[in-house]
Amino acid sequence: MKKVFFLLVCSLLLVAQTSFAQSNATEHRVVFHLSTSDTLAHKALIKQLSNVLAYWNTAKMEVVIHNNGIGFMQTSESGFAKEIAELQQRGVTFAVCENTLRQRKIDKANVLPNAVFVPVGIAELVLKQEAGWAYIKAGF
Amino acid sequence: MKKVFFLLVCSLLLVAQTSFAQSNATEHRVVFHLSTSDTLAHKALIKQLSNVLAYWNTAKMEVVIHNNGIGFMQTSESGFAKEIAELQQRGVTFAVCENTLRQRKIDKANVLPNAVFVPVGIAELVLKQEAGWAYIKAGF
Amino acid sequence: MKKVFFLLVCSLLLVAQTSFAQSNATEHRVVFHLSTSDTLAHKALIKQLSNVLAYWNTAKMEVVIHNNGIGFMQTSESGFAKEIAELQQRGVTFAVCENTLRQRKIDKANVLPNAVFVPVGIAELVLKQEAGWAYIKAGF
Repeated sequence: MKKVFFLLVCSLLLVAQTSFAQSNATEHRVVFHLSTSDTLAHKALIKQLSNVLAYWNTAKMEVVIHNNGIGFMQTSESGFAKEIAELQQRGVTFAVCENTLRQRKIDKANVLPNAVFVPVGIAELVLKQEAGWAYIKAGF
Repeated sequence: MKKVFFLLVCSLLLVAQTSFAQSNATEHRVVFHLSTSDTLAHKALIKQLSNVLAYWNTAKMEVVIHNNGIGFMQTSESGFAKEIAELQQRGVTFAVCENTLRQRKIDKANVLPNAVFVPVGIAELVLKQEAGWAYIKAGF
Repeated sequence: MKKVFFLLVCSLLLVAQTSFAQSNATEHRVVFHLSTSDTLAHKALIKQLSNVLAYWNTAKMEVVIHNNGIGFMQTSESGFAKEIAELQQRGVTFAVCENTLRQRKIDKANVLPNAVFVPVGIAELVLKQEAGWAYIKAGF
């Protein structure tokens, strides 16, 4: 009888833990959606990522780049290669849409170092939200 | 006594199931927010809906159209009537804001076939997020 | 024995309540993200806040203003001071990013009355989503 109780209480705690997991304030997770070619928006995004890291130094952040945003991650186009490298070193992920690369005939060799590749940018934004990440649309 | 245990375990399982429902990865649900008149953004959205369906053929997707986005769904304005009809046949819902129609004096007869009507576009975007759908703001 | 059962059932109910809290449809909570200087987008946002309140009169709404959106809340710039005051009286919160004020050397005395101040606008948008609020990006 005692055993059954013990198992019940354990299950209960497990369920409780899962229920509360989403509001666990110790780790903030944010996915940014970048689809604009506006370099002022790129500049603003860089500053926002820094500002959030200065405020929450353990925040997990990922930027998903697709469509017209792709120039931000192209070696020959980006005005923010240095800042992106620094943010990567501080743990920020930059995820580039492979559909966009294919449709625009951009070679992965022309993408900034240490980028992560995802098959479909929108799908990546959905997966992150499903996993409990907050969503921010970059740009104005 | 055994009965009470049985009921307790059943309740427990019910709670557990509810807690885990949100992370059920077998069905992806996405609501898109379209409020721009930019026809390049309309074209990009059409392509994105196709790309997501090609990647996840059971994804449930709804586009909420309001404010300046309304031209996308007006028979006399839209450049994407054929593509929208095809996407509807593949299960995508196009939900038009009735507030926008009223404020712009657009008759429902001038909206593309098989559109769904919602009283307030923003409220529809909220309801879908409350039901666990991921949110994507269309446009650049 | 009865006591233990009683405590177990109480815990169970507590967990259940927490699990269901998110889908409680009686209170809608929405955070709006405003980062554009486009006054037509400001006008559209004012109308949307009114429309949602007309539809759901108990909705809790907060607008987070940062970056290029700041003019919307500057006494010397905003074209919507009267409408913002009315919406505040109806319970809408307008939260201004202190990082933006500092970077643009705008004094809090030049911000519309009854604004709330938040250290980092993006962080506030994240906190609200973590607490279960729906997210809407304002603008087109």
